[in-house]
Amino acid sequence: MDAPSPFFSSLSMNQHEKQFEQLRQHCVETSYLVSAAALLEWDQQTMLPAGAGAYRSDQVTHLAGLIHQRQTDPKLGDLIDELMDSPLLANADSTSQTATNIRELKRNYDRKIKVPQPLAEAIARASSEGQQIWVAARKANKFAQFEPALRKIVDLKREQADAIGFDGCRYDALLDEYEPGASTEEVSNVLEALRVDLVQLIREVAESSVVVDSSVLHREFPLDQQEAFVRDVSAQVGFDYKRGRLDVTHHPFCTEMGPSDCRITTRYDQTFFSSAFFGTLHEAGHGMYEQGLPTDQYGLPSGQYCSLGIHESQSRLWENFVGRSESFWQHFFPAAKARFPDALEGVGSDQFYAAVNEVAPSLIRVEADEATYNLHIIVRFELERELIDGQLNVSDLPAAWSEKYQKALEISPPDDAMGVLQDVHWSAGLIGYFPTYSLGNLYAAQLFASAEEQIGPLDTQFSAGDFSTLKGWLHQNVHQFGKCRTPHELCVGATKNELSHRHLITHLRNRLAKIYGLAG
Amino acid sequence: MDAPSPFFSSLSMNQHEKQFEQLRQHCVETSYLVSAAALLEWDQQTMLPAGAGAYRSDQVTHLAGLIHQRQTDPKLGDLIDELMDSPLLANADSTSQTATNIRELKRNYDRKIKVPQPLAEAIARASSEGQQIWVAARKANKFAQFEPALRKIVDLKREQADAIGFDGCRYDALLDEYEPGASTEEVSNVLEALRVDLVQLIREVAESSVVVDSSVLHREFPLDQQEAFVRDVSAQVGFDYKRGRLDVTHHPFCTEMGPSDCRITTRYDQTFFSSAFFGTLHEAGHGMYEQGLPTDQYGLPSGQYCSLGIHESQSRLWENFVGRSESFWQHFFPAAKARFPDALEGVGSDQFYAAVNEVAPSLIRVEADEATYNLHIIVRFELERELIDGQLNVSDLPAAWSEKYQKALEISPPDDAMGVLQDVHWSAGLIGYFPTYSLGNLYAAQLFASAEEQIGPLDTQFSAGDFSTLKGWLHQNVHQFGKCRTPHELCVGATKNELSHRHLITHLRNRLAKIYGLAG
Repeated sequence: MDAPSPFFSSLSMNQHEKQFEQLRQHCVETSYLVSAAALLEWDQQTMLPAGAGAYRSDQVTHLAGLIHQRQTDPKLGDLIDELMDSPLLANADSTSQTATNIRELKRNYDRKIKVPQPLAEAIARASSEGQQIWVAARKANKFAQFEPALRKIVDLKREQADAIGFDGCRYDALLDEYEPGASTEEVSNVLEALRVDLVQLIREVAESSVVVDSSVLHREFPLDQQEAFVRDVSAQVGFDYKRGRLDVTHHPFCTEMGPSDCRITTRYDQTFFSSAFFGTLHEAGHGMYEQGLPTDQYGLPSGQYCSLGIHESQSRLWENFVGRSESFWQHFFPAAKARFPDALEGVGSDQFYAAVNEVAPSLIRVEADEATYNLHIIVRFELERELIDGQLNVSDLPAAWSEKYQKALEISPPDDAMGVLQDVHWSAGLIGYFPTYSLGNLYAAQLFASAEEQIGPLDTQFSAGDFSTLKGWLHQNVHQFGKCRTPHELCVGATKNELSHRHLITHLRNRLAKIYGLAG
Repeated sequence: MDAPSPFFSSLSMNQHEKQFEQLRQHCVETSYLVSAAALLEWDQQTMLPAGAGAYRSDQVTHLAGLIHQRQTDPKLGDLIDELMDSPLLANADSTSQTATNIRELKRNYDRKIKVPQPLAEAIARASSEGQQIWVAARKANKFAQFEPALRKIVDLKREQADAIGFDGCRYDALLDEYEPGASTEEVSNVLEALRVDLVQLIREVAESSVVVDSSVLHREFPLDQQEAFVRDVSAQVGFDYKRGRLDVTHHPFCTEMGPSDCRITTRYDQTFFSSAFFGTLHEAGHGMYEQGLPTDQYGLPSGQYCSLGIHESQSRLWENFVGRSESFWQHFFPAAKARFPDALEGVGSDQFYAAVNEVAPSLIRVEADEATYNLHIIVRFELERELIDGQLNVSDLPAAWSEKYQKALEISPPDDAMGVLQDVHWSAGLIGYFPTYSLGNLYAAQLFASAEEQIGPLDTQFSAGDFSTLKGWLHQNVHQFGKCRTPHELCVGATKNELSHRHLITHLRNRLAKIYGLAG
């Protein structure tokens, strides 16, 4: 084909710019419904009167249908395809907002239309029913009761993966939903390396003669003081309450329902300090990421988070790398003592710092410490890969679970509720999701190390209560890009290196060496 | 045309039943969006972060557009027209749910499509801009600043009335939006009769030697105790918190966002007891009506309130006829004393009862007492009729306002903010709305008198804290019908009489005779 004349090219560009504007408008209008659905769901968790659940469920389902219709509208597909072949894309830098939006919208559209409508509906139904059956089975403490529903979900997810297609293994197609561009093989390699070093580190901690006393965290912490404290601290580290809220739910989460409306939730336990405190810092980390996305790109890929792994890196960074650091507690411990004079009477900052960093193998993932947490994830990642590959039968899952826990943490669950039934994910059809938790920890470690390399050690700032330099660095290197960088591009751009397990191990070893008196 | 054979009729009925089911489904799906919009608006008043307003506005506007599209969809019009001509309507009792739904949907559809799209949009824009200009003009205390916007709104509302059409006068077409079936002439007659008797009664109160001391209502009432108290009382009279909520807003309101999700709001004033207390009772009255509508008809006219006048009758009945009664305070005063021991020290139940029933002419409608309130409404009703009829120019409004206040209440406003600029209604295009406030008071009086006639005096029950018989009677005679009775049918059905001003006058005279020592 000949190169178009400048005149033709300019006309054609105008036409494609018009199409791009149509595409943008379509996405913005879809976002009005997506955000309305987000509010309906947030409200359901926080505000809804007890008797109003049934109608709300029907309403959310109906809105999900309207949103799906808009996202799979053939006219949208045509528009995207025209733009994919246009000079608008060809002439744009691949990491520009325009190129990102066209490319990512194509990716989303294709993923959605590749799955036949009956299969999509079967998955939605099986996931919705699966969660209800899971709740009952966990209560009854009987995996057998959940097994048929899980078998159905696994079969449907295999079908979904086949419909979407993959280059390497079938699990790739599912992982790609949550961590775009990541391959099962790469993730396996980095998590296997992490596993080996973690097992070694945890063994050293277990063999240490130091016993950390964390009983101070289990004293009486009045609820109103906890709420005031977590609100103060989350605001001070940088969560913007003019553009967000903090409320109470049973399961903490972060959601956004507008470019300046990010809502986080937490739960309070009167006799356990860490639940609300670190839960809120975690969600505030997610929230600061959402608040840092470009507001003028809201509803477009360029205004959306990069991947679940990158999202989790932001929550874990603030929860663990900042919130469990010595300098953080040098700053906040006096305020904590003022809020909780009874619980913290006679307790020193060092003692408190050690308590929040206790390492002890346990059975429940969401209660695990920073070091053992990733072994819980690796077990689940291995099991779900085997389920999807067909190497493991659903009926053999409890036995495989016990065996892997024994190998990883040298403990195994006394029953199904403490083991294979503890997490909601599989019952909700979320397969391929678990590894993003550990990827988040790895990204957090690598980003934090690079931040300190580039802007100097942060301890002095933290102990002076200044978290703005770190937040600014994260904004510059992570938040502002939306989906304009892949997780890989973002990692290499910010840290000058491929993702590696070494930064997390170094961080844990440094922190635990001092607390547990390990060899350096 | 020959009568159809039974076989044909049965077939045809099935086809119409199918169409009716399509109609029902259309309405239910529209209700999902209407209720989502209601949540977005409730959230905007109660929960929205300060920085999130702009996006929320755009979102609500977009949803309103989607809802309007569904409500004026020509396919909906065709379906309704077919059902209007069907045996399903012809064979149904006129007050049945089926007949009501077909007839009312026809009425709503016609009202909407009779207004040309450009006019509808011009009204929406003028109302939205009008409110903003009104806020600024009220702040500046300058009617002249608001005058051009109001002139535009009045002109557009006249155009709207002409597009909709009317039998009597132009104002009929606007009134019909809020009080279906009511004529301006009837409303004028009943309000004029009320005005004459009210002026006489208020003069007698003014000439009484008794001075009611209401300073007790202006002491210190701690906010948390106020909140606990209004929550207790509203629950005890019958607002169901399992199907509703109470929150704080600047302007109290009642909204529903599902068949079992009715939310009321109030505002607290630390040095004025009545604000939150009677405000909450008022909204709880609205709320109990919403909670009493048939839940299985949600989204259909048969599941919607009868008229604004009937809605207001429920709020005023609980606020004034129950909440300002002697027996009510015989029951609740001990609880009030326990909540507010300092403010109510040495105060007796009788003294408190008199304080909440003080009558005193004042300039601000929303602060007016039960007796003078209706004169505020009558002034507005007369003025807006004259504006719409073209007998009064917008520029002459402040002078006309002062003159009418002088005549009705023997006071006149020192400035525009205390006079013609005090209410939002006209700036928001709500013309024809004001008289429903007084109709509500008249319906409340007549319904309350009939309830006592039919189930006996309620004083003993109230003083024992039992409000369930009254609520049951209201459910039986008002709530359950939705729109299956017109306001007129509902009034005659429940009270065996046409609407009259006499019940309200009798009620006020009885109450005030004792407090102010008037002749019986």
